Amino acid sequence: MANVRARTEVRRKPERARYEREVIEAILDEAAFCHVGFVDDGQPFVIPMIHARVSDTLYLHGSPGGRLVRLLASGAPICVTATILDGLVLARSAPLHSMNYRSVVVLGRPRVVDEQEKLRALEAVVDHVLPGRRAEVRAPSERELKQTDVVALQIDEASAKIRSGPPKDSPDDVDMPVWAGVVPLRTTAGEPIPADDLRDGIAVPSYVAAYRRGPAAPAHP
Amino acid sequence: MANVRARTEVRRKPERARYEREVIEAILDEAAFCHVGFVDDGQPFVIPMIHARVSDTLYLHGSPGGRLVRLLASGAPICVTATILDGLVLARSAPLHSMNYRSVVVLGRPRVVDEQEKLRALEAVVDHVLPGRRAEVRAPSERELKQTDVVALQIDEASAKIRSGPPKDSPDDVDMPVWAGVVPLRTTAGEPIPADDLRDGIAVPSYVAAYRRGPAAPAHP
Repeated sequence: MANVRARTEVRRKPERARYEREVIEAILDEAAFCHVGFVDDGQPFVIPMIHARVSDTLYLHGSPGGRLVRLLASGAPICVTATILDGLVLARSAPLHSMNYRSVVVLGRPRVVDEQEKLRALEAVVDHVLPGRRAEVRAPSERELKQTDVVALQIDEASAKIRSGPPKDSPDDVDMPVWAGVVPLRTTAGEPIPADDLRDGIAVPSYVAAYRRGPAAPAHP
Repeated sequence: MANVRARTEVRRKPERARYEREVIEAILDEAAFCHVGFVDDGQPFVIPMIHARVSDTLYLHGSPGGRLVRLLASGAPICVTATILDGLVLARSAPLHSMNYRSVVVLGRPRVVDEQEKLRALEAVVDHVLPGRRAEVRAPSERELKQTDVVALQIDEASAKIRSGPPKDSPDDVDMPVWAGVVPLRTTAGEPIPADDLRDGIAVPSYVAAYRRGPAAPAHP
């Protein structure tokens, strides 16, 4: 596949590697946010950022004047990593404990987008965070658009890594009188907290009440 | 404070910055895993890893022979970032949407640990992931210890960034007929899934049944 390159090839535990585009896109879409790595004066930095995917482009946004966006906009190489934690894997022996997870690594050099693409990118960010929200809220003004920088990264050099399923105990340990298995984990929403200055009579929208991060059907309700 | 340095000073939204050691340690301890950034041939890479903190040392572990551990062990500069997502912040306007989160960035050059420190580090990793587990499981054998590399990073150059509370809408938008507020998010555990080969009669341990990631009392049950 075009997006399999030496730099994103999974070398440790290659049985966990996935290179299919639909697998990579599904993880990027489900992850609420990502971690962006960049280099400044030889020192790597890793910063949490909100991303959004539109087709084969990943958008990242920030405030102009920030070191991060300035560096991203300079076209320097970056790494975007999105990780979803799916569970704790409890084996009978300490060293075989693990976690179930899905992660994606995307490498590349971002480009700055023009005003029209910037608006589409910011719309995609709101859709990514909370589908249904964008139709209700005020769109960015021209001034607000100018106050936001957006960079785009082509999803070309990318790979996914997935660990799922039960612990893989050594045969010698299976008879130990110790519970073994998986504790599934997911991100869940609590009761929405209305703003203090919320106008009377505005109910929690259905897209908020029904919010859940994840693919269609939960493995555990 | 000793750990406030130019490179970890929060420049964007400095009102979110925290430099107190107890704040930094609490975030590192609550985060189930972290993202580690390193540079290979000019390209930054960001990889999810499980960490554990012991006093002012952060431990990271991996398999020998992997590029990651080899690079970490070379003493090259790395960045460890741990992020906890606490909620979606829904404002009346698209650009003022945000997320509540707590994150920590630690910079430094890791060192390889000796066998004795390695064992203590791996014990700390199990304690970090699931308190109560370590007493029940088989400890690593000498061979298994040799098959695991551990690096240590001094928590010296570090900062935290925290966003909490309600949306900060523009006064002009407050009267819009749109719900605004916070959707709290947390990581929750589903029903434990026993391994297929689990011996009969082994109940789910209390530390598994009661597992929750987070500080003492949940804001939303």
